Amino acid sequence: MSKYPAKTHARNTLSYYRSLAAAAAAAANATGTSSSSEKPLFALTAPSLTLYPHCDQSQPFRQDRYFNYLTGAHDLPAAAVLYNSAADRLTLYLPPIDADDVMWSGLPLSPTQAQEKYDMDVVKYHADLAADVASTNVLTIDDRNKSVLESLLSSSNVTISPTFKEALEEARLRKDEFELALMRKASAISDVSHRAVMSALPIETNEGHIHAEFVYHSMRQGSKFQSYDPICCSGTDCGTLHYVRNDQEMADKQLVLIDAGAEWQCYASDVTRVFPITGEWTPEALAIYKAVLDMQTQSMEGVKPGVKWDDLHLLSHRILIKHFLELGIFKNTKSPEEILEARTSVGFLPHGLGHLLGMDTHDVAGHPNYEDPDPMFRYLRLRRPLEPGFVVTVEPGIYFNKFLLEPYLKDPKHLEIINTEVLEKYWAVGGVRLEDDVLVTETGFENFTKVTTDPEEVARIVKEGIAKGRSHFHVLA
Amino acid sequence: MSKYPAKTHARNTLSYYRSLAAAAAAAANATGTSSSSEKPLFALTAPSLTLYPHCDQSQPFRQDRYFNYLTGAHDLPAAAVLYNSAADRLTLYLPPIDADDVMWSGLPLSPTQAQEKYDMDVVKYHADLAADVASTNVLTIDDRNKSVLESLLSSSNVTISPTFKEALEEARLRKDEFELALMRKASAISDVSHRAVMSALPIETNEGHIHAEFVYHSMRQGSKFQSYDPICCSGTDCGTLHYVRNDQEMADKQLVLIDAGAEWQCYASDVTRVFPITGEWTPEALAIYKAVLDMQTQSMEGVKPGVKWDDLHLLSHRILIKHFLELGIFKNTKSPEEILEARTSVGFLPHGLGHLLGMDTHDVAGHPNYEDPDPMFRYLRLRRPLEPGFVVTVEPGIYFNKFLLEPYLKDPKHLEIINTEVLEKYWAVGGVRLEDDVLVTETGFENFTKVTTDPEEVARIVKEGIAKGRSHFHVLA
Repeated sequence: MSKYPAKTHARNTLSYYRSLAAAAAAAANATGTSSSSEKPLFALTAPSLTLYPHCDQSQPFRQDRYFNYLTGAHDLPAAAVLYNSAADRLTLYLPPIDADDVMWSGLPLSPTQAQEKYDMDVVKYHADLAADVASTNVLTIDDRNKSVLESLLSSSNVTISPTFKEALEEARLRKDEFELALMRKASAISDVSHRAVMSALPIETNEGHIHAEFVYHSMRQGSKFQSYDPICCSGTDCGTLHYVRNDQEMADKQLVLIDAGAEWQCYASDVTRVFPITGEWTPEALAIYKAVLDMQTQSMEGVKPGVKWDDLHLLSHRILIKHFLELGIFKNTKSPEEILEARTSVGFLPHGLGHLLGMDTHDVAGHPNYEDPDPMFRYLRLRRPLEPGFVVTVEPGIYFNKFLLEPYLKDPKHLEIINTEVLEKYWAVGGVRLEDDVLVTETGFENFTKVTTDPEEVARIVKEGIAKGRSHFHVLA
Repeated sequence: MSKYPAKTHARNTLSYYRSLAAAAAAAANATGTSSSSEKPLFALTAPSLTLYPHCDQSQPFRQDRYFNYLTGAHDLPAAAVLYNSAADRLTLYLPPIDADDVMWSGLPLSPTQAQEKYDMDVVKYHADLAADVASTNVLTIDDRNKSVLESLLSSSNVTISPTFKEALEEARLRKDEFELALMRKASAISDVSHRAVMSALPIETNEGHIHAEFVYHSMRQGSKFQSYDPICCSGTDCGTLHYVRNDQEMADKQLVLIDAGAEWQCYASDVTRVFPITGEWTPEALAIYKAVLDMQTQSMEGVKPGVKWDDLHLLSHRILIKHFLELGIFKNTKSPEEILEARTSVGFLPHGLGHLLGMDTHDVAGHPNYEDPDPMFRYLRLRRPLEPGFVVTVEPGIYFNKFLLEPYLKDPKHLEIINTEVLEKYWAVGGVRLEDDVLVTETGFENFTKVTTDPEEVARIVKEGIAKGRSHFHVLA
């Protein structure tokens, strides 16, 4: 594989920067208030390793996503990068060598090694940055960067530019082929890990085992980090959206829900699967699973350039309502559109259909509106029309969460719609969510996630695993 | 198991605080400069969950160790604790409930639940702290705590007290039975995980697999966190003390070194084992392994109250020298004591014999002297005589690290001692370290670490694992 295209990313950022600056200038009627340079110097820094307080142990390192976008140096703390747009020159500055570090950890990457590894015009050391910048003003994105850069430069010629940050985000929003390859790799690792989890039930008797199993298979495939803390829940806890305990026994429950994604060189995957603990679906669990699968399949088929994410989100609610009417959870005294208008379905699907995915699990530039007065759209993290190169998650769900539904079950407007007697049968299902990672292509979509969602196939994998028995697995305790 | 003895810890801390304050007052000849209150209010806070910059994802939570010592609330972010020593009253203050959090994550711990779970006289909310403190001055340990407390109190009646911090550290230094039970549990989890690693060679072909295997078995046993980032190295990289890559192929190398320890409710274990990749020791690897085992066995047998750690560290160097003379790596033209004086062995064992272990992997109150002009003692993290209740690691090692030995191999003083021709045979061994976790008892020691160090037994476990073959293991990729 060739190098991470840092130089192209710098040029893309410059191009967005210029159009954003021009648009801002036009909006200001060219009154001359815009101070944007036409040939800016962009600078970013990687975070340094930080010790825990009163302790000689480092906190886990997570590369800054903006820095990574301009370097691809996903595992390099404390470095700096400068893009000189006038010269079209991208330079990486390595931190100075620390003699004590070398004793304990060996020699760090040399400039020659870094030059081979990264798509840089030049690689130097921190000490060389000041001369390269001279007295020119440098643009960066936030206080942390500004303060580090000012200290490296021994000057205060550093400006926080919201336009530079927005330009980086517009560039990050549209993934190139190199980035897509990293994301396909992250997804492929998650596929294997989810499949492994589904097939290891003889040794998975606690949600913590599910968690361990997923992390193990991801790490074995070279993914040292998860994109986010895995959510591993069972039974009624499947209705808790961001469940964090991951420590309950699973016996006598219906379903397991696992929302977990491996990370590959700073790029995320984000995948959710649900399966029956015994390998046999209860009728209620299967009905809800099929409803969610229908919501996912139809929403995904709607993915193509120009489509409004709001509309696909609404589509998934419409399909939920159709299934709830068929199952009798909703009474048919109202029309589907009236039910949609009443926002009753929001109690069962309170989150959005999905979100942008990239280096961040909830990736940048989605333009959400968390103040939206309409609860249907308040938590939708993507509010702009789809374009080729966007990667989104498609993750409808249906939840039976007593805490979330309590206000609905006290409200006459919703009680006209919800059949509480039928609903009783579904509390034990807890919740179902199915989540795949999908690229918007020129003509439609590509689904990166290959691990099956077919309910019969899922049950078969679980049962095949159970048939192997505990002695098949390498477990000593 | 009963509750974590937070109240006893608060009283212990008060008792150390009073003697430290009295000693300081005596040292100052009671000139009245000491401002220590006799009935202080101690206050500490847990860190809040922090998002990564420009991102809605939380950083991994690590409970503050001082806060944990006074609460046992190892998984509770943002809470505060107050010990009113005049009233002998320990109070926990929970953060306010966030409605959005509840939607996504469910209801947080209630005061009643917290009261049942923790050894507290009272449990309240943040908002109650100010009234409980009134206008009294509160002592805390650092800027972070001071700033959080001042904001909760809407007052500046908070003082950073180095004496309070030192009192906490003196109390933490001597572990009680409850803490020792947590540490034995952490060690037991590590035992199983190390044993699992030794027996999984058919699927461990890369250092990353070793890492995955250890983490998996720890997590399965309920240890969500490692005490520190595992060091998993092979071949000549076993000579790198704080190796962090964990990503090299292991084929055709002699040894694997894994330094990894599970954490249990904020208490650490820290264990290192070394084994031959094929199950067969090379003569050189076996000789070095036996030398390190001899160093470890004899140093550990010296552990008892009153013994100086410096002396056990010296003992391990003396045993290294004895073995190197027998193997011919050191010439016998000098006496063992002359070789010790020349500090030549420091090139092969540059770190200390071990360190205090507790909530921190390198635990508090060891009184190291990193400026010691003698390289033999510069990195020794424990410089005070042993007392009952100390937990230490005993971790001698021998390393053949070209980078570290380079200055020795250019120095005539050391070249008089080192037989470079014999040394050549040992580079491929890389390094050997054996590390156990040991409690100082009234009469001697208790070794928490049970996983074998016997070289024949280790080889047997590795070979038994290999005999099982790849198909025994649950690996899909």
